[in-house]
Amino acid sequence: MDDIDARHKAKMQKIKAARDKMMATKTEEKGLIIVNTGPGKGKSSAGFGMIMRCIAHEMPCAVVQFIKGAMATGERDFLETHFPEACKFYVSGEGFTWETQDRARDIAKAEAGWELAKQLIRDPANRFVLLDEINIALRNDYLDIDDVVGFLLTEKPDMTHVCLTGRNAKPELIEAADMVTEMTLLKHPFRDGIKAQAGVEF
Amino acid sequence: MDDIDARHKAKMQKIKAARDKMMATKTEEKGLIIVNTGPGKGKSSAGFGMIMRCIAHEMPCAVVQFIKGAMATGERDFLETHFPEACKFYVSGEGFTWETQDRARDIAKAEAGWELAKQLIRDPANRFVLLDEINIALRNDYLDIDDVVGFLLTEKPDMTHVCLTGRNAKPELIEAADMVTEMTLLKHPFRDGIKAQAGVEF
Repeated sequence: MDDIDARHKAKMQKIKAARDKMMATKTEEKGLIIVNTGPGKGKSSAGFGMIMRCIAHEMPCAVVQFIKGAMATGERDFLETHFPEACKFYVSGEGFTWETQDRARDIAKAEAGWELAKQLIRDPANRFVLLDEINIALRNDYLDIDDVVGFLLTEKPDMTHVCLTGRNAKPELIEAADMVTEMTLLKHPFRDGIKAQAGVEF
Repeated sequence: MDDIDARHKAKMQKIKAARDKMMATKTEEKGLIIVNTGPGKGKSSAGFGMIMRCIAHEMPCAVVQFIKGAMATGERDFLETHFPEACKFYVSGEGFTWETQDRARDIAKAEAGWELAKQLIRDPANRFVLLDEINIALRNDYLDIDDVVGFLLTEKPDMTHVCLTGRNAKPELIEAADMVTEMTLLKHPFRDGIKAQAGVEF
């Protein structure tokens, strides 16, 4: 074994010892409030990636899709076709606000979605509930942020994970959450005239 | 219809007109080089969310998982069990560098993974190839960044998407990419002694 490899091994042994010590302090399990926000890509797709993991681990899960409802999305087709039992899928929205152009109806849809979300979260059989794009409904004040945060903090079963996606997450939600990721846009092909494409965006 | 709703409708009609005009300029389709990087969550899970979309759209896809190979991950079980035809899944890594503690072997594994990745990308039947955690192999100089970027820019078929994940993406890769998202950590439950949990992290 030459020098560089020997030094590498010694360094990695030290890192492993330090990590093992650190990881030994991470022993608790609990249901998390997870927020994926920011202007970048991957907020919803990371949520659906976690749904894939839940199905693999046979953890019953559910999705309520706010806002995007009018779009035919790959993730919806996929889950409805292949995993109707493992993952319940509900659509509450009817599309982007500039498509529906009907505020009263958008509010009614958001409220209906939230009622359904509460039922799904209250049912302890569900281990993971994805509230896709709910941050948009919250940002537009279609749903009351105090209602939503209050419910999550007081009624969510201890072992249930809830993931809330969408840009512009409200500060009250970020404060209440356990895990928050901001997706930041460094580069986007829209700038070069590329349209949204199957597989990547929907 | 009261005032607020009428104003909302008028505003949304204007936004829709502006968006439709803007979207009409986004007409091109092409295979993208996509990078998910940064210290936050969701880099791999967003990649797997795109795999879910590809399977839904019947776009043949493939995964080469660098680094994480030793871990039993939900996404690997899921794809190998349910979609062995729709999504080919290969593992090249044997675990984190501090677990393997063997630089020469890590390099050999990374190189073998990259050879496989090149074959998968060259085959125009594959519409989407996910190179999970390859950025770690690049950052450790287990793979040559100029080789990888040069290959993607000159040999990737025009309509194939390639998604490269992992923190610390090299500047040369970011420069070459079409779509780059940085996942930023705003909050992580590790700080409070919570361990990595099924469904969320693996």
